[in-house]
Amino acid sequence: MELIDGKKIADAIKQEIAAEVAQMVAAGGKKPHLAAVLVGHDGGSETYVAHKVKACEQCGFNSTVVRFEDNVTEEELLATIEKLNNDTDIDGFIVQLPLPKHIDEQKIIEAIDYRKDVDGFHPVNVGRMSIGLPCFVSATPQGIMELLKRYEINTKGADCVVLGRSNIVGKPVASLMMQKAMPGDATVTVCHSRTKDIKEYCRRADIIIAALGSPGFVTEDMVKDGVVIIDVGTTRVPSKETKSGFRLKGDVDFEHVAPKCSYITPVPGGVGPMTIVSLMKNTLLAAQHKIYK
Amino acid sequence: MELIDGKKIADAIKQEIAAEVAQMVAAGGKKPHLAAVLVGHDGGSETYVAHKVKACEQCGFNSTVVRFEDNVTEEELLATIEKLNNDTDIDGFIVQLPLPKHIDEQKIIEAIDYRKDVDGFHPVNVGRMSIGLPCFVSATPQGIMELLKRYEINTKGADCVVLGRSNIVGKPVASLMMQKAMPGDATVTVCHSRTKDIKEYCRRADIIIAALGSPGFVTEDMVKDGVVIIDVGTTRVPSKETKSGFRLKGDVDFEHVAPKCSYITPVPGGVGPMTIVSLMKNTLLAAQHKIYK
Repeated sequence: MELIDGKKIADAIKQEIAAEVAQMVAAGGKKPHLAAVLVGHDGGSETYVAHKVKACEQCGFNSTVVRFEDNVTEEELLATIEKLNNDTDIDGFIVQLPLPKHIDEQKIIEAIDYRKDVDGFHPVNVGRMSIGLPCFVSATPQGIMELLKRYEINTKGADCVVLGRSNIVGKPVASLMMQKAMPGDATVTVCHSRTKDIKEYCRRADIIIAALGSPGFVTEDMVKDGVVIIDVGTTRVPSKETKSGFRLKGDVDFEHVAPKCSYITPVPGGVGPMTIVSLMKNTLLAAQHKIYK
Repeated sequence: MELIDGKKIADAIKQEIAAEVAQMVAAGGKKPHLAAVLVGHDGGSETYVAHKVKACEQCGFNSTVVRFEDNVTEEELLATIEKLNNDTDIDGFIVQLPLPKHIDEQKIIEAIDYRKDVDGFHPVNVGRMSIGLPCFVSATPQGIMELLKRYEINTKGADCVVLGRSNIVGKPVASLMMQKAMPGDATVTVCHSRTKDIKEYCRRADIIIAALGSPGFVTEDMVKDGVVIIDVGTTRVPSKETKSGFRLKGDVDFEHVAPKCSYITPVPGGVGPMTIVSLMKNTLLAAQHKIYK
């Protein structure tokens, strides 16, 4: 069993990006510049944005955080997006989700210029990904593909079971895994709450990508020997072993499942660290105009 | 075994649309208006466009065909698209594919205003479909979903195998079948040229949607009793029984497979007739501004 070290890979990619940025700057170019729009004071959102700002520093990017209180109007947010769309110094930007309930999230997402949509949530990027065209691929699916690539895991013709059909993980990663590409070219099955006998699908799988948000869902009896497991779940569960009183638990019963695996991602330290570097990667591509002119 | 009669359903839908248009016109509204851009004199394209014009007549729509010779430039085509985008009398339009090789097909597709893209090929429509938002769904996948709906076939939790991963059938129909919707909510596996042991996937399937373009690919030994089969294949094969010297053959060995099925679409007369009514349906929705304002 080999542990897929997302932390190590993420650090390596950040260094690669920083080296590329140093070259760009040395050649007289400007630093990539990522902006984040943050609404309210949700603890999770604050933390995510702080991590993104820190990653920008590590990669040599400029970053800007635009803050609003919870009572911001949709019009104000749309006006800010319009400004960021037209700001030639901003290469890409994100609006940290979730937004307060009085804001139409989808409307906000679609207002972002898809050429600056480094989160990859705009329908143009989602659609181009499905068609197999160059686009900004959203952070988690992109991070998963990068892990499979760096660990040279053979996906071609593999039986790949995706657990969960969310718009941010399940559906896009299924779409990427079935593309004629490497990694990709897998035979993909998407399982979800309505699937009958989910165990049977898992037992046949060469690769399981678990994104249900159901801690410990995948148990020892559900997997075959030699399976590759990518665990996207990160649920906070109570713990007596940490100061905070909780820890992150994945969708996989790691302790009992890991010994059967050829490769498995731990939680934390697997897919998690990859998501922010995927955002950095997209921002670099945006600054280099490598996806859109 | 029940035959899924696409011809009958398609005729019924055309009558429903015509009745709706008659009401719109009686209420002082205008007829829906579909335009088709046709380049060159490819026999297949000529036939398809002629069928679309005829369907418009049957539905009470206005139709316009804009013709170009094979040597049309990309700029001329783009200028025409711009004109159609801005023509308030045109509710929706299509550019008949394939286009001559010197034209960038994807560029043409993306130049169409997605709000008039009744073919549903624009990335915005593809992306919105994947996310599960209202959009123009392309003709063949929409036709398949309509057949499943009208025959009240239970798809929820069903094991659905899609054979083929094309951008116009396999991928979109897989996406629709996994959505939380009726029809939909199926456990979907997409098989393709790289799939190992495709027979095993088919044997377990409750529903098979075959879109490989490989005549007679699905044989008796590959399906279980009671399976539902939607055959999207339409390959011209030589025939001594027709005047033309050929006939259309599906991806399924109909003669031997049909007796095992609970439902099956014939070729021709199954999915085929549904595709043009899907285009009519999209044009009606465009005229009514039911998808986009």
